[in-house]
Amino acid sequence: MAKDDLDYYVIPSEDAHGSEHIAACDRRREWISGLTGIAGQVVISKTVAYFITDSRYWVQATNQIDSNWRCIQTGHVDGPKDWIEWLIDRPKDSRIGIDARMLSYSKATKLNNLLSPKGSKLVYPHRNLIDLIWKDKPLRPKEPVFIHPVEFTGRSTPDKLADIRTWIRETPPSTTSYSKSAPTADKYHVATLITALDAIAYILNLRGQGIPFNSVFQSYLVITLDKAILFIDPAKLTDDVEDYLKIVGVDTREYNDIWDYLRMREWGEGKVIITPETSYAIALMLTDFRHTVMPSYVGSVKAIKNDTEIHGIRRAYLRDGASFVKFLAWLEDKHSKGYEITEYEAAFRLTEYRKTNRHFVGLAYENISASGPNATLPHYSPTKSTAAMIDRDTPYLNDSGGHYKEGTCDTARTWIFGRPTTEQCEAYTRVLRGHIAIDSATFPEGTSGHQLDALAREALWRDGMDNGHGTGHDAGSFLNIHEGPHSSDNLTLVPGHVVTNEPGFCKRFLFGYLPGKWGICIKSALAVQRARTKREFNGERWLGFERLTCVPIQTKVIKDAMLTEDEKQWVKDHNRRCLEKLEPYLRDDERALRWLKREVQRGLGGWTWLSVPYPPTSLLTLPHTH
Amino acid sequence: MAKDDLDYYVIPSEDAHGSEHIAACDRRREWISGLTGIAGQVVISKTVAYFITDSRYWVQATNQIDSNWRCIQTGHVDGPKDWIEWLIDRPKDSRIGIDARMLSYSKATKLNNLLSPKGSKLVYPHRNLIDLIWKDKPLRPKEPVFIHPVEFTGRSTPDKLADIRTWIRETPPSTTSYSKSAPTADKYHVATLITALDAIAYILNLRGQGIPFNSVFQSYLVITLDKAILFIDPAKLTDDVEDYLKIVGVDTREYNDIWDYLRMREWGEGKVIITPETSYAIALMLTDFRHTVMPSYVGSVKAIKNDTEIHGIRRAYLRDGASFVKFLAWLEDKHSKGYEITEYEAAFRLTEYRKTNRHFVGLAYENISASGPNATLPHYSPTKSTAAMIDRDTPYLNDSGGHYKEGTCDTARTWIFGRPTTEQCEAYTRVLRGHIAIDSATFPEGTSGHQLDALAREALWRDGMDNGHGTGHDAGSFLNIHEGPHSSDNLTLVPGHVVTNEPGFCKRFLFGYLPGKWGICIKSALAVQRARTKREFNGERWLGFERLTCVPIQTKVIKDAMLTEDEKQWVKDHNRRCLEKLEPYLRDDERALRWLKREVQRGLGGWTWLSVPYPPTSLLTLPHTH
Repeated sequence: MAKDDLDYYVIPSEDAHGSEHIAACDRRREWISGLTGIAGQVVISKTVAYFITDSRYWVQATNQIDSNWRCIQTGHVDGPKDWIEWLIDRPKDSRIGIDARMLSYSKATKLNNLLSPKGSKLVYPHRNLIDLIWKDKPLRPKEPVFIHPVEFTGRSTPDKLADIRTWIRETPPSTTSYSKSAPTADKYHVATLITALDAIAYILNLRGQGIPFNSVFQSYLVITLDKAILFIDPAKLTDDVEDYLKIVGVDTREYNDIWDYLRMREWGEGKVIITPETSYAIALMLTDFRHTVMPSYVGSVKAIKNDTEIHGIRRAYLRDGASFVKFLAWLEDKHSKGYEITEYEAAFRLTEYRKTNRHFVGLAYENISASGPNATLPHYSPTKSTAAMIDRDTPYLNDSGGHYKEGTCDTARTWIFGRPTTEQCEAYTRVLRGHIAIDSATFPEGTSGHQLDALAREALWRDGMDNGHGTGHDAGSFLNIHEGPHSSDNLTLVPGHVVTNEPGFCKRFLFGYLPGKWGICIKSALAVQRARTKREFNGERWLGFERLTCVPIQTKVIKDAMLTEDEKQWVKDHNRRCLEKLEPYLRDDERALRWLKREVQRGLGGWTWLSVPYPPTSLLTLPHTH
Repeated sequence: MAKDDLDYYVIPSEDAHGSEHIAACDRRREWISGLTGIAGQVVISKTVAYFITDSRYWVQATNQIDSNWRCIQTGHVDGPKDWIEWLIDRPKDSRIGIDARMLSYSKATKLNNLLSPKGSKLVYPHRNLIDLIWKDKPLRPKEPVFIHPVEFTGRSTPDKLADIRTWIRETPPSTTSYSKSAPTADKYHVATLITALDAIAYILNLRGQGIPFNSVFQSYLVITLDKAILFIDPAKLTDDVEDYLKIVGVDTREYNDIWDYLRMREWGEGKVIITPETSYAIALMLTDFRHTVMPSYVGSVKAIKNDTEIHGIRRAYLRDGASFVKFLAWLEDKHSKGYEITEYEAAFRLTEYRKTNRHFVGLAYENISASGPNATLPHYSPTKSTAAMIDRDTPYLNDSGGHYKEGTCDTARTWIFGRPTTEQCEAYTRVLRGHIAIDSATFPEGTSGHQLDALAREALWRDGMDNGHGTGHDAGSFLNIHEGPHSSDNLTLVPGHVVTNEPGFCKRFLFGYLPGKWGICIKSALAVQRARTKREFNGERWLGFERLTCVPIQTKVIKDAMLTEDEKQWVKDHNRRCLEKLEPYLRDDERALRWLKREVQRGLGGWTWLSVPYPPTSLLTLPHTH
């Protein structure tokens, strides 16, 4: 830092591709801070080491971090919104170092705009300062890439490339609207550079290994109007894959050649389209004259699953649902026999069941298996040594899913094996009502997930409760579980979108998550589809959801007095449908099948002693003072 | 136009204060086009006269306008979004004339930014071209201003002025964030110029006459840190009002002196705060160095009604509701006796009832009294000569309200006196469900009306129907019925806000309104208030609505099979409450009291022959193709 005359050095969590899950060799922030599985930024000043994270991770951070660190909590009413806001609050005229590869174009632009008024600036040292001191750094993953056949993707790579080239061609030349002369050749778009790993995997119908939970592979993809070049470590390419790439018309070059390629402007004259998520290093190398920044076209196409993908995801959810049922049956059986089961053992067992499924590849994300208080920590994942025993009398939350060649699954269920409290039953029922409201919504074309959000929350709001997180996100097809453009929840929903429906509630949740007594979440995946409505005003512009997840809802804890007749019917229908769909997958597990039948036949709200009539909110609002 | 070398001349609908309702002398657009009661812009080119309006008024416009005009419909999928978008589509390098007083700062800025790339520009002729040719132009209203006492406003003018001065003082000097030197005197804010007529009336606790439907008076108000000057036609000032203004510390000057005041910079050194709605002429006169544009502070304060205002509005709604009930009873009686009643007669009669009310001042807006197809025209107001007979068998919509010194009312009810069709009953019930969903919503602080919107629509969406307009707007307290900042529906709701809840449905509505068979709307006014919830998580941050409107809901046409138990209870409670609250106001009208009692006692869905079980949407969605 002294050599580069830096006041601060920022160590982001991301890799050079803005990935959510990253390879061991890219976990620089984790290595320097020792904090695992927590989103956050590290900023080193001349005297202090800061760990900056939002309040969801505050507790975990303070538990795991040692006294050499100062922990900055973001997202508080009085605190900074995020690490960027914190950083611009540093003294004027600071020199802030960062590896431009680990910073997106959009973040870099934002930072520069905010820093320049204060006389501060970003500096990009030639070497990554962590890499200079990280001696025993793991090697880049070498695991071979494999072909993901069209029977799963529904669309061939040449098709996808042709589609992208049409889009490049049709993107108007970037001239100022008022210039009267015809645009010169250098203003036309002739190529796009893809850096998002899931986008590359999607286009090439290839998948990778070595990065946990994401079947992608580190690479860059350049697509020009007549060429496609994949920049990748040759060690990852088997003969099959090399042949395949030749056939689909994709050349390959060394991963790091991308920088020479850009420096030499090998694509020729004209502009290269990149996304706001592209690393700033790439944008700098291209220079402003040679790139146009646009929202990811591939991302928006990828988000709309084709029929083959939807069929695959449906089948995947049946296999995954069957494993979930086997697991719940097993867990209840163990409990009934008096065994104590830890959160870790439970997660492990569910994974074992999943592993037996056809087309299973791996877990879509780290198992969330949380009992009581742990269920209020987001993305809490038990470790063998620290896992808690599952408490029968508080809600147990399992939020997990598998990657299958047919699709990626993401399901959460909350189960109470013992005696729930009235408060727990009511909270569970309210979360369920929100879940049903979204699940059964009908809406016109042009509606965004954001607009539907209140439907999921209103049931909670009525009791003065709220959902601590977003109501849903897009999910990939044998790709990342959190798939862009889910981030923009203002995106309008179109048929083929697969989104999760996950209202939840945490006891004692406050500005994000704080340790609480228990948490509840019911998450199913939904596919947007056309809906036929009774009146069809303005024609067939009506949309609804198909539920993909096939795991029953626990009926015992439902407070039936709080449900409408339609909602009660919804629960019965859903559970009956689970039995009907899963029966063929449970032939090898009598216990699971028995358990499922019992759950489906059991009436709502087993706890009759709870079913006192429920006071409508109106009675609770303040009296009119006329 | 030739003298000023203009290619186009724009004639907006607004007056110099951006008012919705304007004085006769300001209806330049109406005079030149001959179109009354229709929102729209006129643009005259060298060869063509254009009338530009959105699709809501398309039908009316084409009916009323003669062949000398070309009608431009905005808001269509393929057409221009609005007149501004249409205007910037004109040929390059055009000179577009407009009276800068009739154009808001925000619109002018937007236009200039959009025109300059095309080499076109706005030009501001010294005289308004219409005024040059409008010989028999009516005089400015001379009706005297009157005092609106604190017993109604709850807050004195000196209080309000002090509050505004604190705000001026606390508005930070406008310096660029990176300038390191201390701001100079000319950068500090020392005054605000109020041009919105309802804001002036609110601050001064004065009301006016002469402008239809709005009890305001044309004037400008300058508030400096030690002075307040009202620019107004002296003819409007009675001795009482002059004395009053002296007492509250407000000087008066001639209405047109405002221009000299600004030219001479009489406020001294420092900046003047104006709103984006302020006319561009004012902004130009102030020059960029001397004004700061900020959202209306007075508007945001005015929107939050104090206890006195809320109490007043409650009482006003009781009087107004009683009149509505008397009117409905009268209309049904007439029908039962075989009389044919026109929409106009009906509206006239309701107004007569309102006139008898204590504190009644006038109508809040033009009566909407519409039978059958006319109910699909927004803001349809019948004229004596053209009004249609009220058809017993199609929904009759009455949307109207009175100004009372205690508050301003805005209510809509739809009634079917004859035999409704199944389709009408179902539509009515769905609109009612949306109405109930908003009415009984509970939500946390920080929620915007926009977020709640889906609650009103979901019931309609389920049948493939939608609400053609916004779900609500702010309403004034003995002031404009459409009160800013209602325009920004992203505004978070806070206790004291009074908003309307008006879901509706129009048969055959398409991109806005087209002539259809019938329309339904149920509108009540709500006051945001604190709500007590069962769990109160995160403390008392929970809000709900108090319903102000006291007019029954017609039960006969409700399809009860479509309502939940809670919703049925809501209807019964609402109607019962109407009887209980209105009884004292109906002592002078036996017929009305009898009618109300009958309506309240009548069960839901008189049309038992309709009450076949209602198919849930789920059955109607496309079958899963597993």
